[in-house]
Amino acid sequence: MKALLLIAHGSRRQQSNDEVIVLAEKLKLNCADQYDIIHAGFLELAETLIPDGIKKCVDDGATSIIVLPYFLNSGRHVVEDIPNIVNDTQPHYPSIDIKIAPHLGASDLMMELLITTANAAK
Amino acid sequence: MKALLLIAHGSRRQQSNDEVIVLAEKLKLNCADQYDIIHAGFLELAETLIPDGIKKCVDDGATSIIVLPYFLNSGRHVVEDIPNIVNDTQPHYPSIDIKIAPHLGASDLMMELLITTANAAK
Repeated sequence: MKALLLIAHGSRRQQSNDEVIVLAEKLKLNCADQYDIIHAGFLELAETLIPDGIKKCVDDGATSIIVLPYFLNSGRHVVEDIPNIVNDTQPHYPSIDIKIAPHLGASDLMMELLITTANAAK
Repeated sequence: MKALLLIAHGSRRQQSNDEVIVLAEKLKLNCADQYDIIHAGFLELAETLIPDGIKKCVDDGATSIIVLPYFLNSGRHVVEDIPNIVNDTQPHYPSIDIKIAPHLGASDLMMELLITTANAAK
């Protein structure tokens, strides 16, 4: 069973965290054919934190997990913090394959997203 | 002349800021047919700040400017800080039409970007 764990930074503003949770729900509707389990999690400041998000996926029956950083830049959070937390959590689940996806800014699709969003300005 | 001003948060890590500047350069190559002038700017912590970015666009001959927030969530920066700075700057250029685009997380294309990025995990 494949799981997708969307990880945002986490905000003191609950509305921002709720947007990420809603986005994970939308992902469930859009890629249920590719991922059996989808959860949202946060690096800090909000629940669910990454280790608990990984546990949720495993409890739901995941045998492999893609951790998807919802970050635009390859800052310290993407380069160090998320990999460190995943590496610290991995030994608790030796039979589960956990991989980290690139940050969003690295995608070729970002160009299209930027131009479409700019053109939506009112 | 239409200008696009890409605004990221700004980081103490210069590599993150450089990524935004490179992204603006890529945008120049990809939407020169839609925008005559493209610059990158930052909300804080890095040069160029938003008022100077707007000035750069005007100095280059812009008659309209789209400010494009390079942000994923509708946090305080998107909802208050960027609009406040743009509103404070606008009176200096009464003949220039300055609009703010939605944040990236609001786009329908985000779904596609997320799924493609997840599938790129190695």
